[in-house]
Amino acid sequence: MNFKIRRAAKEDCKDISRMIMDLAIYEKMPDQVKISHEELERDGFCQNPLFECLVAEVPEEHKSNEGFTVTGYALYFYTYSTWKGRAVYLEDLYVMPKFRGNGIGTALLSKVAEIGKKKQCVRLQLSVLNWNTPSRDFYAAKGAQDLTVTEGWHAIRFDGQNLDNLANEAPKD
Amino acid sequence: MNFKIRRAAKEDCKDISRMIMDLAIYEKMPDQVKISHEELERDGFCQNPLFECLVAEVPEEHKSNEGFTVTGYALYFYTYSTWKGRAVYLEDLYVMPKFRGNGIGTALLSKVAEIGKKKQCVRLQLSVLNWNTPSRDFYAAKGAQDLTVTEGWHAIRFDGQNLDNLANEAPKD
Repeated sequence: MNFKIRRAAKEDCKDISRMIMDLAIYEKMPDQVKISHEELERDGFCQNPLFECLVAEVPEEHKSNEGFTVTGYALYFYTYSTWKGRAVYLEDLYVMPKFRGNGIGTALLSKVAEIGKKKQCVRLQLSVLNWNTPSRDFYAAKGAQDLTVTEGWHAIRFDGQNLDNLANEAPKD
Repeated sequence: MNFKIRRAAKEDCKDISRMIMDLAIYEKMPDQVKISHEELERDGFCQNPLFECLVAEVPEEHKSNEGFTVTGYALYFYTYSTWKGRAVYLEDLYVMPKFRGNGIGTALLSKVAEIGKKKQCVRLQLSVLNWNTPSRDFYAAKGAQDLTVTEGWHAIRFDGQNLDNLANEAPKD
């Protein structure tokens, strides 16, 4: 199947928002999604965007049953390692189930790697759920290292009330 | 002990660089550090800085045996969640051993939380090594959630040759 990888435009945010929800359902946390396409438009397509995004598009004749031609996305941003310098972080990589097995996921991932390297990024990082064997196998097959397994890194989060409490403890200037 | 938390200036990069190495030694990966203070100056103190940094400073009379008054730092940047929006990521939090137990670590952490909240961040995230019990206990006591334990998130990395290989697979425009 033919497909094209291109930079997302503001007009793609409805499609991206739809697939963000699809991915959250797959990850069994759909109630966690609080971001709408309006917020994606505001945050990603402004003077200093908070993220960048690629989409995969198939020709009209291969559109989904629901009529969608934008069938995958990769959303990423830049981070910083105090050991190595600039890095790129892939927040989401998703391809609609019907369109898998055509190389769309690999094309999105490798394009993010290429864009990152052009910006002098020395790492591409991402997170994956331990029960998501297809994704873990996919990244491992491409040569990625699972840092939680090899080095023991855990992800820690403050949010909601515990983030408020923490902020309230801050020393006054 | 008195101390002050303030935004890092370009002139602090030598101190920050010294403590980045101290932290890497503690994390048993000193050979991983490839960033010098010149690169920190370039990357953090330019038009569009790749990170922000706070430092903790003690009065001259409490300086370390080596003569240092900058005795801790918190280096962070902004990320994006497609479920919740803007977030802040704490890459490094460090206090020199001799100066621990005075609330410097809590002050640095809570100040990052406060700055993040002012920028509408709904999360503060960071990574910690599984054998680093003092740090894990410190964050847990402040109410943080260990996402690797509770939800099963693993950190995945491409770098070096496998990142090059991936980038080379990217479809041509």
